[in-house]
Amino acid sequence: MLKVAVLGTSGYGGAEILRILNAHDEVKLNYFGANTQSGQRIDKSLGHFYKHFDSIMDNKDLESVCEENDCILAATPHDFLAKILTKDMLKKCVIIDLSADFRLKNAKKYEEYYNFTHPNISLLQDSVYGLSELYRDSIKEANLIANPGCYPTCSTLCIAPFLKHGIIDKKSIIIDAKSGVSGAGRSTKLDNLFCEVHENVKAYGLINHRHTAEIEENLSIISNSEITLSFTPHLIPMNRGILITAYAQLESKYESITEKEIQEILTNFYANSYFVRVLEYGVAPQTRWVKGSNFVDVSVCLDKRNKRLIMMGALDNLVKGAAGQAIQNLNIRFGFTEHKALNQLPLFP
Amino acid sequence: MLKVAVLGTSGYGGAEILRILNAHDEVKLNYFGANTQSGQRIDKSLGHFYKHFDSIMDNKDLESVCEENDCILAATPHDFLAKILTKDMLKKCVIIDLSADFRLKNAKKYEEYYNFTHPNISLLQDSVYGLSELYRDSIKEANLIANPGCYPTCSTLCIAPFLKHGIIDKKSIIIDAKSGVSGAGRSTKLDNLFCEVHENVKAYGLINHRHTAEIEENLSIISNSEITLSFTPHLIPMNRGILITAYAQLESKYESITEKEIQEILTNFYANSYFVRVLEYGVAPQTRWVKGSNFVDVSVCLDKRNKRLIMMGALDNLVKGAAGQAIQNLNIRFGFTEHKALNQLPLFP
Amino acid sequence: MLKVAVLGTSGYGGAEILRILNAHDEVKLNYFGANTQSGQRIDKSLGHFYKHFDSIMDNKDLESVCEENDCILAATPHDFLAKILTKDMLKKCVIIDLSADFRLKNAKKYEEYYNFTHPNISLLQDSVYGLSELYRDSIKEANLIANPGCYPTCSTLCIAPFLKHGIIDKKSIIIDAKSGVSGAGRSTKLDNLFCEVHENVKAYGLINHRHTAEIEENLSIISNSEITLSFTPHLIPMNRGILITAYAQLESKYESITEKEIQEILTNFYANSYFVRVLEYGVAPQTRWVKGSNFVDVSVCLDKRNKRLIMMGALDNLVKGAAGQAIQNLNIRFGFTEHKALNQLPLFP
Amino acid sequence: MLKVAVLGTSGYGGAEILRILNAHDEVKLNYFGANTQSGQRIDKSLGHFYKHFDSIMDNKDLESVCEENDCILAATPHDFLAKILTKDMLKKCVIIDLSADFRLKNAKKYEEYYNFTHPNISLLQDSVYGLSELYRDSIKEANLIANPGCYPTCSTLCIAPFLKHGIIDKKSIIIDAKSGVSGAGRSTKLDNLFCEVHENVKAYGLINHRHTAEIEENLSIISNSEITLSFTPHLIPMNRGILITAYAQLESKYESITEKEIQEILTNFYANSYFVRVLEYGVAPQTRWVKGSNFVDVSVCLDKRNKRLIMMGALDNLVKGAAGQAIQNLNIRFGFTEHKALNQLPLFP
Repeated sequence: MLKVAVLGTSGYGGAEILRILNAHDEVKLNYFGANTQSGQRIDKSLGHFYKHFDSIMDNKDLESVCEENDCILAATPHDFLAKILTKDMLKKCVIIDLSADFRLKNAKKYEEYYNFTHPNISLLQDSVYGLSELYRDSIKEANLIANPGCYPTCSTLCIAPFLKHGIIDKKSIIIDAKSGVSGAGRSTKLDNLFCEVHENVKAYGLINHRHTAEIEENLSIISNSEITLSFTPHLIPMNRGILITAYAQLESKYESITEKEIQEILTNFYANSYFVRVLEYGVAPQTRWVKGSNFVDVSVCLDKRNKRLIMMGALDNLVKGAAGQAIQNLNIRFGFTEHKALNQLPLFP
Repeated sequence: MLKVAVLGTSGYGGAEILRILNAHDEVKLNYFGANTQSGQRIDKSLGHFYKHFDSIMDNKDLESVCEENDCILAATPHDFLAKILTKDMLKKCVIIDLSADFRLKNAKKYEEYYNFTHPNISLLQDSVYGLSELYRDSIKEANLIANPGCYPTCSTLCIAPFLKHGIIDKKSIIIDAKSGVSGAGRSTKLDNLFCEVHENVKAYGLINHRHTAEIEENLSIISNSEITLSFTPHLIPMNRGILITAYAQLESKYESITEKEIQEILTNFYANSYFVRVLEYGVAPQTRWVKGSNFVDVSVCLDKRNKRLIMMGALDNLVKGAAGQAIQNLNIRFGFTEHKALNQLPLFP
Repeated sequence: MLKVAVLGTSGYGGAEILRILNAHDEVKLNYFGANTQSGQRIDKSLGHFYKHFDSIMDNKDLESVCEENDCILAATPHDFLAKILTKDMLKKCVIIDLSADFRLKNAKKYEEYYNFTHPNISLLQDSVYGLSELYRDSIKEANLIANPGCYPTCSTLCIAPFLKHGIIDKKSIIIDAKSGVSGAGRSTKLDNLFCEVHENVKAYGLINHRHTAEIEENLSIISNSEITLSFTPHLIPMNRGILITAYAQLESKYESITEKEIQEILTNFYANSYFVRVLEYGVAPQTRWVKGSNFVDVSVCLDKRNKRLIMMGALDNLVKGAAGQAIQNLNIRFGFTEHKALNQLPLFP
Repeated sequence: MLKVAVLGTSGYGGAEILRILNAHDEVKLNYFGANTQSGQRIDKSLGHFYKHFDSIMDNKDLESVCEENDCILAATPHDFLAKILTKDMLKKCVIIDLSADFRLKNAKKYEEYYNFTHPNISLLQDSVYGLSELYRDSIKEANLIANPGCYPTCSTLCIAPFLKHGIIDKKSIIIDAKSGVSGAGRSTKLDNLFCEVHENVKAYGLINHRHTAEIEENLSIISNSEITLSFTPHLIPMNRGILITAYAQLESKYESITEKEIQEILTNFYANSYFVRVLEYGVAPQTRWVKGSNFVDVSVCLDKRNKRLIMMGALDNLVKGAAGQAIQNLNIRFGFTEHKALNQLPLFP
């Protein structure tokens, strides 16, 4: 049994890790870390775990946690691990970090988008970006896996196939994203109160949302050129779910591409990706179709009149957008079947 | 492998059966029945099943379905099975009926509450009421299992322990119930439109809701006396969940009962019931703590000033209130572990 | 023009006062008080008021506010006014207090239910309880009006007619209440986060909710005898609305009362109350029918089998349950038409 | 008093007309038309109108309705008025049509987008497009006012100022729209059921939504050139509200335009438009800020890195997107103050 520690247990991401790993028959949940809630019983903070998780959340130093576990899943705030993680620790224990601390290779972007100077630049180069479908081979050998953000996972999976094939104009990408409220975490801010969110929709983080840097870096690597784009997230009055509607102009030489051809590009790209479900042409993704599961539903639409592609995707931000992908990476890293503990079907309605 | 047929596949109850049985390693889903949607692919009606259930829904006669399967889970409308089911069919195939057709022993109640004359009274006497925690032994040998309603399951489990112990006044029971909208099924009625339900709460079915008869029959059997009660359901703007808040006066000889004693009654009553989670004293159930799971959370509160008990419970109406309990009964009937395919933890948030 | 000051401007209650008074042509909003948000522009905290309320919220001492205004509407936290209000201030300015500080005549109840020793008992006796429909004459002459709580307003209006007529057993009253989330105020608590409330229903404040004392005091005055009752509030995933479902046994001499008779009692009781809409017999109230308005919809149902009445009511907790009733009281006190600025129809959907 | 008839009373648009006109002191609601619900009392279909609208809905022929009224507000389905309206009727009565029947000047578009051959092309040329802020002068003299669609109203108001000034590339416009469910009307379709919509977000009507034609025609007129664009609506789990996020490239000669300059363009364009609230630079619109009101909140954001404008707007689809704008047009047409009966502030929360 693999000994696994969870950090940030009482948040939505941490809770989701517990829910999923509870069904994993090769993992022993061995340590539950928390910050402000340390000292409390898990099921007192997360009532749905009553009779299943009654351990006391703890607050040990990272050094000890590394020594006592084979793998740490860290659902901690940004700028937490970056400050204290060392190469030595990584020799003892595999870290799968759900925060943004090791996602960006370009350290300057942390200053620009996250407002802090990265304190651990050498580790930044060691980390492997854990977008499972794209980097499976590197993940297998990584000791520090930077689990992708929810928006970047969905956006990258929608756009990558067409960018890779050179079909879309790299300067024309616009991503209009919609997210449920759990993406904002479990912290008590006015903006996350029920009455502020319910019966409302709004854009936020205009032109400077943190995930912009992550998506741009992803797509730049894929297209082997520097990509900038517009990314506009919107807050939707629902618990879970991310929907991406991305737009890009067709490259002029592909202006007469057919619906059949773009559909094939998408289908072929994900032929070996169990968790990516390519919808039939003409069907648009819906977040209710993936809720509670690790699936990403993607589809594409050809806007011939405007010589444009509309690339769409939906995922559950807490599963494929966080805990689920972290466990998918754990499975890849430790040689388990990739979808172990992740084969629950979506919960609808 | 047990060959199982599902009737009423495209409704919320049918869909939930598929979701759960997909994880059952001793069941083969062998037939998918539907009425108006027969001829359609399952995942066209239920998009979340894309890549998992692509069979065409069919509309065979019941005779053939019985012959070709070991067990039928029928999520059909009321008054459907009652008309066509025969003793012969039951010799070939076990029927677990999620409709109300075989729940009430007193056939007259169908006229009073369901507005039809029961066409099959002899079968009514053969059926076993499938409230798993209370009738496990009979279920093991039944060929016709009447799967309980969502409100009756939760109400009965809340009240039974105290009624059984003679602690509460049998004439004083009041059940105030709250349900999510999926309990109303997937039919296209004005009252179920989003804009009619959202930002609204209302009582409905005042003093004559159909489940009143079922709950009264249950509690009459348990208390061995004729019980009548007030049952008031309310519609809550959420997808899933039932919450029961039931009130009853203490019998005069129990007026000085303590919190500790009532808590023990509850705890002892469900000592061997994995799916019934008795909450700690002072904790009230919440539907979010059971969503997507087969758990029923129950608790009790002593209102000393008023010499009254408040008995509370929460379940997911589509799981323990329908499909989950049906599969729990299937497991009991066919000798599988009772919680096989039912050990998913609740999905929160 | 009446000069009016609002305290607690940035909360939901304060905001609602502004919304309604904006349509009042005999009132000048003259002062906007706030605590933590003082110094900020109103429309920065409450974006819907953009271009309509751009004053800076202030934090003057109560003495000055009383001197500069004819009336104060205080949507302040409990235990705020009680500490600082004096008889002298009340000579200069009418106070309509939306908090609970002056609602209960029995000062001991503050210790029992509110956890503080009331610091201003003499004023307690001077205050008039502002349930407009019941105490219109006293309100006309009051300088300190204790605006009722949302639950007590709705509960009292539902039950009063039947209690007054001696039809129901005083010891048998049970109130099962449901409220939208705005009733919890605009403070940043974990329990009010969107993801904690959405897709959930729960009871809270079991047997000791603060409004219990207020309702019991109301009904005791009406029935001229000491009443205790069970009051169980539930939190519903919606912004606005309170629904009351109250139960009581019929007094034995009224066991053969008819539906027509109980309906007449209700209709006659509210014959002169514009804001109380007595629904037709058989129609249950719905919160969507009163949203955004000052109406209270009430109805009653005779449960003959159980010799019980079910008394029901719905109101908008921020309007008739708070700001609307406060302005109704202002209109009564200052001799304006009672429904001035309060004649907006409900907003549906 | 102006005698006004409403057609389509029992739908959400019709109901909203009644709610608003109830506060209009120069209008007498004289006739309530309905189709399937004719013969029923208004408040039986729309419970919030209890005690306010108890007339029986009727189904007279249009000829008579025109004769007996000064103005008809028609919230009827598409292809209803187009078939039966005549020039003669328009001499007797002003028609404000909330359907799409007379919005498009190019009759062929009805075949392309609405699937019917327009039966009344000459009237099409007589109608005035009722986007109040843009066509006030023509509306004053029109006898047939084609009230704009909800998406076209919001989209056009967001984009018009920048298109008019020639700042944006006409070929690059992308509109990503989000709407609450009431926009889909009150008809009983599976897709509008609570459980299908709640906890879900999806795109629909990809590249061929009917409003595409209307928006393109609007913008083509404004820019005096033929415009095509991508329009992608999304369904949001809320009752009311439309949010527009529109993207366009800057024309090359405007690549160095400043935030201040684009803000001024917007502010100046709407200097005389009471209902259009230009938000401060950096503030994004939210639907909760306009709910229940006739306001449209607009703002703009300069995406310098990508040489792009993000143009945003929010309105209440039933008010400024339907009934409110219809009444604004009625006010303009009959010489009343433009905001008569429309000065309610938004309802938040």
